[in-house]
Amino acid sequence: MTEQTNQTDTPGAKPDLSSEEATRHRAKMEKRKAVQDAEVAGKTIEKGLLMVHTGPGKGKSTAAFGLALRTLGSGGRVGVVQFIKGAWHSAERDAFAAFGERVVWHSMGDGFTWETQDLARDKASARRAWDKALELMADPAITLLVLDELNIALRYDYLPEAEVVAALANRRDGLHVVVTGRNARPSLVAAADLVTEMGLVKHHFAAGVKAQKGIEF
Amino acid sequence: MTEQTNQTDTPGAKPDLSSEEATRHRAKMEKRKAVQDAEVAGKTIEKGLLMVHTGPGKGKSTAAFGLALRTLGSGGRVGVVQFIKGAWHSAERDAFAAFGERVVWHSMGDGFTWETQDLARDKASARRAWDKALELMADPAITLLVLDELNIALRYDYLPEAEVVAALANRRDGLHVVVTGRNARPSLVAAADLVTEMGLVKHHFAAGVKAQKGIEF
Repeated sequence: MTEQTNQTDTPGAKPDLSSEEATRHRAKMEKRKAVQDAEVAGKTIEKGLLMVHTGPGKGKSTAAFGLALRTLGSGGRVGVVQFIKGAWHSAERDAFAAFGERVVWHSMGDGFTWETQDLARDKASARRAWDKALELMADPAITLLVLDELNIALRYDYLPEAEVVAALANRRDGLHVVVTGRNARPSLVAAADLVTEMGLVKHHFAAGVKAQKGIEF
Repeated sequence: MTEQTNQTDTPGAKPDLSSEEATRHRAKMEKRKAVQDAEVAGKTIEKGLLMVHTGPGKGKSTAAFGLALRTLGSGGRVGVVQFIKGAWHSAERDAFAAFGERVVWHSMGDGFTWETQDLARDKASARRAWDKALELMADPAITLLVLDELNIALRYDYLPEAEVVAALANRRDGLHVVVTGRNARPSLVAAADLVTEMGLVKHHFAAGVKAQKGIEF
C-alpha cells in the first residue's frame, strides 16, 4: 500500500480569515472539545457487541465486511456464515483470501427463496447454517462473527426466532456479532447493542443501471 | 481462508411440510422469480457510480471500506483520501496493507475541527486533500475512489461546494466514487447515483460502552 499522512504544520497560503473570526472559532471549538472529552470519559464499558444492520438501503453486508476488515487490521479473527448466499461467487470472499486462516467463511445458503422454490430445502439449509454459527460462536479464536442475511432466514421462519435470539444474547464474553438483512425482528433489535437502519434515499437500479462487478458482487 | 460452500442436495431429515404447502410455496416463488428476472433484464446500463453514505448511524465509512474490499476482490484498484482523519491510526488502513500497491491511501486531515481549533488550518488541509482527490480521479488505474468524510469538509465550508460537486459529477467514465460523512449536501445528493442514509436506531455509546479496537477504530 502506498501511504501518505499529512498533518501537523501547514505551510503556505492561509485562507483569508480575520483574527477575530479565528479567535471566535477557537473559543467555540474549545467548548465543543470539552463536551466531547467528557462524553468519552463517561464511557468505560468494554464488551462484545451484538450489532444489527437492517433496512432497505445498500450497505448492510458491505458494512459488516468492512467491520471484518477492521477486525483483521487489529489482529483479530473473523467467522462468516452466509444464510442465503450459497453457490454464487462474491468478490469480497476472494479478497478475504489475502488473510489466510484468519477468516473462516461458510456460505451455507441455497440462494434466494424465489430461486430455490423449495421451502423444505430452504429450512434445512438455514438449520445447517445456524449449527455452523453456533460452532463458531463457541470457538474462542473468533473475534467477530458475521451472520450475513440471518434476518432473512428469521423473517421467513426458516429458524425459530426465540432460540436464535437467546443464543445471540447469551454469546460468550468479548465476542462481537453482526447480523445483516432487511426486516430485523423486533426481538433481535431489543437484544442488540447497536442497530443501524440503512435507508434507501436513491438507488441506481431505479435508473436502469445493472448490478456491476466490484460494486454489487 | 478456510472455505466451505454447502448447496445443491440437502440429504437428511426434511422439516414437516405438507406437499400442498410445498406446492403453494413453489407456485408463489415461480411468480416472484419471473418478476425478479424481468427486473434484472430491464437494467442494462453500466457506469461508474457516484455513491454517498450519509446519516447519523454507524457504517458510513465502514461500508465504503467494505466496497473497497469487494473492488479488490474483483481485481480492481482503490484510492482513499481521508478529509478529516490524519494522524490517528486505523485498523482498516493496516488491513489494506495486505493488498500492496493496489490501495493508495492518503490521510490528509488534521482531526476533527474541535481538536485542531484552527479554522485556517482545517481549510488548508481540506484543500490539499481535495487536490489529492482530483489527482486520483484522473488516474486511470483507480477503479474506486473513497472520499472519506468529504461531507464534513463541505458542511463546514472548508471547500467550495459547487466546484467539488461539479468535479465529481464530471468524473471520468467508469470511475466509481464513494463519499462519506453526515449531512451530505443536497447538491451532492442530486448528483449521486446511489445515496444511503445510515439511520441510528440504537447505539452502544448511549449505554456507556466505549469505542473498542476492531469495532470503532
